[in-house]
Amino acid sequence: MLRGKQTWWFDNKPVIIGTATVVGPDEGDGPLAADFDLVHPELDMQQKSWEKAERLLLEQASEFALQNAKLERSQLEFYIGGDLMNQIISNSFAARSLGAPYLGVFGACSTSMESLALASQLVDSGAATHVMAGTCSHNCTAEKQFRYPTEYGSQKPPTAQYTVTGAGAAVVAATGEGPVVECATIGKVVDLGITDPFNMGAAMAPAAVDTIQAHFNDTGRSPGDYDLIVTGDLAGVGHPIAKDLLKQNGVPMDNTLFMDCGLMVYDVQKQKVQAGGSGCGCSAVVTYGHLLKRIQKGELKRILVVATGALLSPLSFQQGESIPGIAHAVAIAAGKE
Amino acid sequence: MLRGKQTWWFDNKPVIIGTATVVGPDEGDGPLAADFDLVHPELDMQQKSWEKAERLLLEQASEFALQNAKLERSQLEFYIGGDLMNQIISNSFAARSLGAPYLGVFGACSTSMESLALASQLVDSGAATHVMAGTCSHNCTAEKQFRYPTEYGSQKPPTAQYTVTGAGAAVVAATGEGPVVECATIGKVVDLGITDPFNMGAAMAPAAVDTIQAHFNDTGRSPGDYDLIVTGDLAGVGHPIAKDLLKQNGVPMDNTLFMDCGLMVYDVQKQKVQAGGSGCGCSAVVTYGHLLKRIQKGELKRILVVATGALLSPLSFQQGESIPGIAHAVAIAAGKE
Repeated sequence: MLRGKQTWWFDNKPVIIGTATVVGPDEGDGPLAADFDLVHPELDMQQKSWEKAERLLLEQASEFALQNAKLERSQLEFYIGGDLMNQIISNSFAARSLGAPYLGVFGACSTSMESLALASQLVDSGAATHVMAGTCSHNCTAEKQFRYPTEYGSQKPPTAQYTVTGAGAAVVAATGEGPVVECATIGKVVDLGITDPFNMGAAMAPAAVDTIQAHFNDTGRSPGDYDLIVTGDLAGVGHPIAKDLLKQNGVPMDNTLFMDCGLMVYDVQKQKVQAGGSGCGCSAVVTYGHLLKRIQKGELKRILVVATGALLSPLSFQQGESIPGIAHAVAIAAGKE
Repeated sequence: MLRGKQTWWFDNKPVIIGTATVVGPDEGDGPLAADFDLVHPELDMQQKSWEKAERLLLEQASEFALQNAKLERSQLEFYIGGDLMNQIISNSFAARSLGAPYLGVFGACSTSMESLALASQLVDSGAATHVMAGTCSHNCTAEKQFRYPTEYGSQKPPTAQYTVTGAGAAVVAATGEGPVVECATIGKVVDLGITDPFNMGAAMAPAAVDTIQAHFNDTGRSPGDYDLIVTGDLAGVGHPIAKDLLKQNGVPMDNTLFMDCGLMVYDVQKQKVQAGGSGCGCSAVVTYGHLLKRIQKGELKRILVVATGALLSPLSFQQGESIPGIAHAVAIAAGKE
């Protein structure tokens, strides 16, 4: 049901009955390594192209998510997913392997929560009983497509972010055991005129703030209702901006409550990841790999995942357009109250 | 509610309270010209780039759709749309102009019905009362991105299709006057191994057949329940293949019942469009411009629009991948029974 202006309230509390995450070597060297289902030791994953490697990540994550959910392939009614590749080919090819009716979505790095929000909405409303949401990114496909060939060895400013090599998938069901999806706030496009593609965190920060405030307005909740509020991939530059903007707007949050997946997936001080992680896979592997495990261990009771996306293309940047941002928020809790 | 395996049955019959279509000069020279809200006399629409022209088409269509629906901008709760451009920038920029919470989707040329299906599902389930679905394509942006620069003057085989320059938008509401959306069947990815991007109709035909048959299985309906069943953009090569496949599978349909938007939007004999129209805008402008007007005139009582998409990227083709197809079907009727 719609609550407020842009939030879906899930009365039937869809359950995340299984998730899986598959990552690359850099994420395997990071602080969350133990939480991922599979860590590939090499970036190419023995595939002939980076694109095939990215697709493999998602095919494995979706397969493992089914196994972890103890679900037969034929019981899955819909697959919802997208990625950063042109025409979201990683998801389309993975959906072909999966064989389920397929809804392709795109919200750049907010795709993780866009797909989880839609999957939860379908289950909550009775339009499905089992839906998988998935997404992925690969550092080398993103570099190749959005920036320069990696072999070129171009230098990056410290505001740049490092695209996560990883895929995450979650199975949402009408009944079963697992964390529940309470509600989802769908974001607006927010554009404050940032044009630097090496500073996407700053471009996305205002969108995160807009969605977080819309979420509180729509639901009547406040920061204190959550044990953790994480943005998707604002990283070292964008996250403090979002924090400052929220404080200015009367929503102060400290660094133990308000965190960012892009700052959690790597050891930003030690690993060469500039300002931190980004990419569709960033919020997906942190949420589905790490945060849901913390919920299941009882360490967190209720979290808000605010996945952020920069809605640019290389062409729109070349044509002098600014970088519109968007953020979608999903509230996940330990169980039905 | 889920009916059968992959069909959403809309018990509350969401209403299409307003639509709009904006097209380019070739579509204005075609047989459906009188049904479009605005025909641009020039392909560039006085914009500095083809991409800006494509965005303008969608911005105008969404604005006119609101006007035709007699809806204030602030009453629109969600916008759902996508397009063929990398990272669906036309829709992201148009969603920025529109200001509504935005769900980006991608199903190549099936995006028109993917977005209409999701918009209808949200309204039917009470997750929204007013949702806009939109999509667009532009001949020159598609040529530039997927094929060759138009200035290059490359020749095309007769199996190639001509991307429609046009945008279509529809406002779906919980109550009001207009045609109703009865149900939607979400398609699977179907890939029979076609690798020729100049023969997309053949690549998409099996997906159309799969979705049409799934629709009949799920709903218990048969071809006789419809006055018209249209595929999105199979055009002169793909549509006869789909017709033959359906006949082989025991679902014979004649050419007055089973048609294709790609064959309707142009005079394929007179206009230089090879096998016929294609692109996200093709099924959108034919459905929202022409077919819904025929329903409102009483000429058609119930139609099934089966929008077809080829889920390739230039890169996936260059890497030797085949072209996966998908089709989403939406049933639209004159009114609540």
